[in-house]
Amino acid sequence: MSSGDGDSSSLRIMVNGMPGPMATAAAEACLRKGLSLSPIAMTGPDIESSTITVSDDVTGNSAEVRLIPASDEGREDIVSSLAGLRESVGAENVLAIDYTHPSAVNANGVFYAENKLPFVMGTTGGDREQLMSDMESRDAFAVIAPNMGKQIVAMQAGLEDLAEKFPSAFAGYKLEVTESHQKTKADTSGTAKAVIGSLKTLSDDDFDLEEDIKMLRDDESSLAFGVPEDAMNGHAFHTYTLTSSDGSVQFQLQHNVSGRTVYAEGTADAVKFLASKVKSGMEGKVFSMIDVLSEGALE
Amino acid sequence: MSSGDGDSSSLRIMVNGMPGPMATAAAEACLRKGLSLSPIAMTGPDIESSTITVSDDVTGNSAEVRLIPASDEGREDIVSSLAGLRESVGAENVLAIDYTHPSAVNANGVFYAENKLPFVMGTTGGDREQLMSDMESRDAFAVIAPNMGKQIVAMQAGLEDLAEKFPSAFAGYKLEVTESHQKTKADTSGTAKAVIGSLKTLSDDDFDLEEDIKMLRDDESSLAFGVPEDAMNGHAFHTYTLTSSDGSVQFQLQHNVSGRTVYAEGTADAVKFLASKVKSGMEGKVFSMIDVLSEGALE
Repeated sequence: MSSGDGDSSSLRIMVNGMPGPMATAAAEACLRKGLSLSPIAMTGPDIESSTITVSDDVTGNSAEVRLIPASDEGREDIVSSLAGLRESVGAENVLAIDYTHPSAVNANGVFYAENKLPFVMGTTGGDREQLMSDMESRDAFAVIAPNMGKQIVAMQAGLEDLAEKFPSAFAGYKLEVTESHQKTKADTSGTAKAVIGSLKTLSDDDFDLEEDIKMLRDDESSLAFGVPEDAMNGHAFHTYTLTSSDGSVQFQLQHNVSGRTVYAEGTADAVKFLASKVKSGMEGKVFSMIDVLSEGALE
Repeated sequence: MSSGDGDSSSLRIMVNGMPGPMATAAAEACLRKGLSLSPIAMTGPDIESSTITVSDDVTGNSAEVRLIPASDEGREDIVSSLAGLRESVGAENVLAIDYTHPSAVNANGVFYAENKLPFVMGTTGGDREQLMSDMESRDAFAVIAPNMGKQIVAMQAGLEDLAEKFPSAFAGYKLEVTESHQKTKADTSGTAKAVIGSLKTLSDDDFDLEEDIKMLRDDESSLAFGVPEDAMNGHAFHTYTLTSSDGSVQFQLQHNVSGRTVYAEGTADAVKFLASKVKSGMEGKVFSMIDVLSEGALE
């Protein structure tokens, strides 16, 4: 319901990855929070070019967006459209949101950086270390995080702090992780990986990120795991269990999200935050969602 | 299996509240960690004086302790025995552990303080604010915490930090709490109260500590809550749930302890920590278990 404040009304957000559901939810959240969309955006290289209408049910705000396939040719088209957009609203007012595909993460990151387009990377997967070093070497402006949900990010921050403050406090504890997502999600949960990083520091468990996460990607298993039926096409349920070596003490943490609203709104807040950083005149920098949260920029 | 190190071998720990199971477990943990017990200790005012043998199965260490009822007369007896003990080992080497009864917390705290007896208060309940102000006004040395288990304390510390760093990050979320303990536990879980304090700061929920905790104190409910049958006489199971206003996001935290070992060993570590503080020559101070954990004093 919030309307654009003075600073954000001139922004144009290029939401890449539509008509995918997460990109679409992010675009709707932008409209809901008073942001305008860029009239062009990237879609998958194998998807035909088309123009879609994005509309937010809550505010009734809507926008038309031409989707351009991210092929070599398409990228040239995007670069020239981008130039026109920047000329009309000012280069510092054009930012991107990326909810594409794990396989596109690294190429898109470099594309944004080379075109000086500040971006929020909501897509998980890809080579994350490569992504970070590509961005740092190019002084890119970005918010990169495995999860854009405010409360999830807060929980993650809390676990990071705890692991830093009391490493090995849970030494000897055994870690077990189960996560369920809609069956179309290609990769392991990025949030789970981040949370597990902290839990490993606390427990000294030699948990293997590639092999030891129990991933559920079929409706039957997800239902049995407690996911509501109407969230089969969009959910993120995670359960982490730490058990003492004698079995007498057990900790369990669950974070269960149905639908995409919490991430979409956090993404819109992140892009606003990033726009304010770009305008502050500081040098390009990669922020995490914890940075965004710490500065009180999540509504 | 640890033997007394140079500093702690001269200590004499008065474990009050035996033959209660928590006090007994703490006394056994002291023996296990190479500490010696005071030959006298307080028991309930309605319990007859007797001499018991405390023995630790792991190390085979044992000790005889005369239990003196904490009546007016009994307290005089304790004060004079204490004087003798202090004369033989040095006043700074005699400390107390309290696992008595919620109704005894405040009187015992004042008794320890007036007799300059540093103490670890493992008993929950009583008037905690009064306890803290009584200790501060008397410059007493104490470790006071609702939970002595290392990992539980770490979790609690993490939640406190999170609430301080990101207050209201979970605004609008609804809090629900269920806890199960052995049916002999008189009061609400002190740990639950501390954890709920942090969760209320995060969620702004008007959760009422007296009315809104679902307490399970009968075997049938505890079994249904997942407590193993052999832990009916000693367990602490807690589940906290935060749910977003639209129901789409849910966080759950569980900490489930069977038996008393984790608390008993933390208590023994706490009394060692306190002894080192007393010997450092600093002024009397009340420490929390988070202080103990932060200084790496939990083994």
